[in-house]
Amino acid sequence: MYRPQIKVVDCTVRDGGLMNKWQFTDDFVEQVYLANSKAGIDYMEIGYLSSESAFSRDEYGPWKFCAEADIQRIIGHNGEKKIKLSAMADIGRIEYNDIPPCEESSLDMVRVACYVHQIDAAIALAHHCMDKGYEATINLMAVSTVGPRDLEEALEDLAKCRVPIIYLVDSFGAFYSEDIDILSQKYMAALPDKTIGIHTHNNQQLAFANTIAAIINGANYLDGSLYGIGRGAGNCPLELLVSFLKNPKFKVKPLIEVIEAHIFPWRAKIDWGYFIPYMMTGVLNQHPRSAMAHMESDHKNNVTDFFNQVTNATDLV
Amino acid sequence: MYRPQIKVVDCTVRDGGLMNKWQFTDDFVEQVYLANSKAGIDYMEIGYLSSESAFSRDEYGPWKFCAEADIQRIIGHNGEKKIKLSAMADIGRIEYNDIPPCEESSLDMVRVACYVHQIDAAIALAHHCMDKGYEATINLMAVSTVGPRDLEEALEDLAKCRVPIIYLVDSFGAFYSEDIDILSQKYMAALPDKTIGIHTHNNQQLAFANTIAAIINGANYLDGSLYGIGRGAGNCPLELLVSFLKNPKFKVKPLIEVIEAHIFPWRAKIDWGYFIPYMMTGVLNQHPRSAMAHMESDHKNNVTDFFNQVTNATDLV
Repeated sequence: MYRPQIKVVDCTVRDGGLMNKWQFTDDFVEQVYLANSKAGIDYMEIGYLSSESAFSRDEYGPWKFCAEADIQRIIGHNGEKKIKLSAMADIGRIEYNDIPPCEESSLDMVRVACYVHQIDAAIALAHHCMDKGYEATINLMAVSTVGPRDLEEALEDLAKCRVPIIYLVDSFGAFYSEDIDILSQKYMAALPDKTIGIHTHNNQQLAFANTIAAIINGANYLDGSLYGIGRGAGNCPLELLVSFLKNPKFKVKPLIEVIEAHIFPWRAKIDWGYFIPYMMTGVLNQHPRSAMAHMESDHKNNVTDFFNQVTNATDLV
Repeated sequence: MYRPQIKVVDCTVRDGGLMNKWQFTDDFVEQVYLANSKAGIDYMEIGYLSSESAFSRDEYGPWKFCAEADIQRIIGHNGEKKIKLSAMADIGRIEYNDIPPCEESSLDMVRVACYVHQIDAAIALAHHCMDKGYEATINLMAVSTVGPRDLEEALEDLAKCRVPIIYLVDSFGAFYSEDIDILSQKYMAALPDKTIGIHTHNNQQLAFANTIAAIINGANYLDGSLYGIGRGAGNCPLELLVSFLKNPKFKVKPLIEVIEAHIFPWRAKIDWGYFIPYMMTGVLNQHPRSAMAHMESDHKNNVTDFFNQVTNATDLV
């Protein structure tokens, strides 16, 4: 039996765009949109909400901003919207005034990403989005680096807020499934009236396993991306997640088709997935930025050098 | 706290050789041997025991046979043997008479691989190896296709035999961690006097997660391979497993060094790891041979064709 409450969120464009500054063609985004629609995916996260004054369109593609005109180029000629659209908002990168009312937007949901010290600002932004008519979530990032007292306080704040969906996020790909068991149970206990979501990274090849662990513990909002495309080691592969879920509304074939036609070409250009530098930052519970810099260098296969660099740095701490 | 009973078995040459007919240079095998020794790995499985009359050395490299003269070229000039060596024996591919007494061999352990209908022959061969002085295991393959009654009978036979180590093997990469939980517990309950081992495949990116699940359920013999090299989607990556284990005798760095120097060059020649065809046979609980044939064809990226081929075949069953 499947849980009808389960919703799947495709993060291909939003998280994958962290690897190429969202330089996806409109055709790419449209094909992902159509494939997600056919596959029964519940939400497509199409990018970030950012203020145009904070970033340059010369450097960043449209999905750094998710302006309505950008979205219309994708969905406007495809008839009625077939799938809910989501955008992520980082604290401090979007002005309240730059968020249109929901009825003037094709976005259905705003997911507010924050670190633990930003929790008050995140709640305020999520409430603002809800007041403008959007669904909203708060995605508390990098929990693997948050101490138990800070986490407890954050969960207490979240329990009191109006935001209905709270995400457990393994930003660094550092968690084993046992950690996900414990944290899911902690979130469920602290947030009895809310829905729990799960967003994983694949540094230790555990993104799919950890997503399953969260499902078993009651998480109902599940993030994935096509072929796992995403920052660093990437995310839970959507095609694996959909193959696992029992709800017959989900179809794998449209995902395989779009992977072949539109994701494979990106494999030759950007390196997401299991690579030793990403594995190392996952094992060490570190932000992947050092690994990403190494992978973008001209000596990305010198993984022993990278190992020495990060483990020596650790010894100093 | 770590479990001192845990033993790690590196299958790089044995399982990886399934992808290249064991055409590894002596230098490759020696560097893997030295790295395993430095990393504190307990056993290196160096290949298969096969009768020279059954296979041609023109077609297969030395590690299809593991003759003592072959092994000596690797370890003979490296001083005292630093690590236990293992070889796998398939039922019907090795004559009893072709197995030397243990005191005339550098091998310490023979692992007998069998399907469920071969269990009696496997026990006989394992007993024969033990009588010749070897450690022995039985690795019951493809359990994901064995019905509950057949499995129960096989476990009853194994409980009665003298072989002390029995492996749970996910040959098709079809199991989720919940399946491993259930099967590990079944093996532990049916074989209370024996040690349980785990050998996984990575078709659904669950090889490491499933190995951890087996550890939690009491498995103490753990298989891995460098960078996951192995048939099809490959195995549990040894570097991830060693990073996870708490026993301070295990070191990751020698594994990273040998991956950089000797495994990376093979990435350009053979395709193991997460690919859609392997993912599909895992999801469908099928032998990977159709996926391997597809990956060796000149249209390996036509994964939609492969999807249609295997799902149509499934519909007919």
